[in-house]
Amino acid sequence: MKTRLHDILRRPHPIVQGGMIWNSGWELASAVSEAGGLGLVGSGSMRPEILVDHVRKAKAATKEPFGVNIPLIYKYSEEMARICVDEEVPVVFSSAGSPKKLTPFLKEHGIRVFHVVSTPALASKCEAAGVDGVVAEGFEAGGHNGRDELTTMVLVPMVRRAVRIPVIAAGGIATGAQMAAAMALGADGVQVGSRFAATVEGSGHEAFKRAVVDAGPTDTMLTLKKTVPVRLIRNAFCERALEAESRGATPEELAELLGTGRARMGMFEGNLEEGELEIGQCSGLIEDLPSAGDVLRRIASECEEALNRLRSLTLQAP
Amino acid sequence: MKTRLHDILRRPHPIVQGGMIWNSGWELASAVSEAGGLGLVGSGSMRPEILVDHVRKAKAATKEPFGVNIPLIYKYSEEMARICVDEEVPVVFSSAGSPKKLTPFLKEHGIRVFHVVSTPALASKCEAAGVDGVVAEGFEAGGHNGRDELTTMVLVPMVRRAVRIPVIAAGGIATGAQMAAAMALGADGVQVGSRFAATVEGSGHEAFKRAVVDAGPTDTMLTLKKTVPVRLIRNAFCERALEAESRGATPEELAELLGTGRARMGMFEGNLEEGELEIGQCSGLIEDLPSAGDVLRRIASECEEALNRLRSLTLQAP
Repeated sequence: MKTRLHDILRRPHPIVQGGMIWNSGWELASAVSEAGGLGLVGSGSMRPEILVDHVRKAKAATKEPFGVNIPLIYKYSEEMARICVDEEVPVVFSSAGSPKKLTPFLKEHGIRVFHVVSTPALASKCEAAGVDGVVAEGFEAGGHNGRDELTTMVLVPMVRRAVRIPVIAAGGIATGAQMAAAMALGADGVQVGSRFAATVEGSGHEAFKRAVVDAGPTDTMLTLKKTVPVRLIRNAFCERALEAESRGATPEELAELLGTGRARMGMFEGNLEEGELEIGQCSGLIEDLPSAGDVLRRIASECEEALNRLRSLTLQAP
Repeated sequence: MKTRLHDILRRPHPIVQGGMIWNSGWELASAVSEAGGLGLVGSGSMRPEILVDHVRKAKAATKEPFGVNIPLIYKYSEEMARICVDEEVPVVFSSAGSPKKLTPFLKEHGIRVFHVVSTPALASKCEAAGVDGVVAEGFEAGGHNGRDELTTMVLVPMVRRAVRIPVIAAGGIATGAQMAAAMALGADGVQVGSRFAATVEGSGHEAFKRAVVDAGPTDTMLTLKKTVPVRLIRNAFCERALEAESRGATPEELAELLGTGRARMGMFEGNLEEGELEIGQCSGLIEDLPSAGDVLRRIASECEEALNRLRSLTLQAP
């Protein structure tokens, strides 16, 4: 499927693997790029020297282009951007912060920049800041999330109206039928997170990956809305956080309840009760742990099937 | 577009106008059916004799079939079902309650039944109860809403997997591109609420309809989650409700804050500050107040355009 992203990302499929803390290291990113999508190394859980190591290993594993995700609130974000320049990473997906912060620096060095947005207003700011495109990520997405709770179904057309640059849809997308839906909404491509976390190459703990497969349709919830909203599997920690919110806990109380290192504890160390298990609502549609290449090929072929099904519907019209 | 709904609803377009309290009387329902969709009279804000009056006026206004929406928690729901039988209404959309309550009675009298669901588990229960189809309504929808916060993008494929009966997608759908997306997700048709509320024939107060047009992308929020979750425009009342929730108000406090008659006050009497203004996130995509027939024709033609655009994407594939 050839969209405007084709010329920017130079990938056969307009499918980006979302950068996810603790889940997307060099193995996942290189496997996705090798299969024809765009893999992203998620730098948000790495120290700078670890990112260098992951980028070099990914380069050794594939000749295809891959990118890096940089959360701008992360204390090392500027150092991460410098590493991307030094290592000649062709594309950066930034998130969680102002698109003005790193876009000029990265663009000056010939790096393509996409920024993740949860409102059309932020998408317009991104366009003004000179990004190459935006990722419109809805409320159903896993992990950190916007405050306005716009879902993918409404956010993508709103962002499509707000900007002229390419729009990548994200949030809730784990199947090719959903990819076809995103393209119908006006997206130029999709970013897929949760589905790629639950793969052989995902760097999360095996117990976490199994928890993603086991999660049912109603097993995630957005919580910690007074601090940084995050979508989690409803384990013991998540239920405590929801209960604290329900009784009106202050941001300070919630920050104390969260503590530090809980995302690592859940997703990387596999503590399924006390860790943060960040994943999207689409975990309820994920039922196996294939290779990342198989996931990519499956999404692409399911998308083709969905489009063929739509074609036959219109041909039957009375 | 011919789907399985064609044989059940006998309408040229698989587009249902959602039954909405205070907004969907005989004028809206008959206009939608006359234009080729399925109009629904929303009985949830009517006394029984008022429903009889609306059904008779709708029959006088159009020879085309139309339906009635019955919220099962409503005290008159059984009386409403009896009226539908007596008046030979061909289809009932029930919501907010157990599908076992009225389905056998309605089916016995030859009435087609669809039930609104917010989870795939409830969809399975509906299928077991013998309904003809389900409406899978996501978190972005206006008015009363499910507790599990599943969005249309993930709920529709989940429900599609859970049942074999027809699935109508709802929640966030105001444009034809969104209709095409819903069909890509596996829906057999769509239910559109907010977009039809903001029409000439919508029975809401002019000030409310204008507020829907004026609402921006981030102007609604789901609130009153401890009582009956409802999506509202963020006016003075909604902000008080959100603030009360944030400080941990009990269900009793929230019920007292809500009081009675607030939906009528907002949507029918046009009190934009103190009334409940129930509307979906897609209000941010609604920018005019056309006739219901124009809305229906616009959605159908935009859907066709979106499908053609998808077709050209795949033809360009390398």
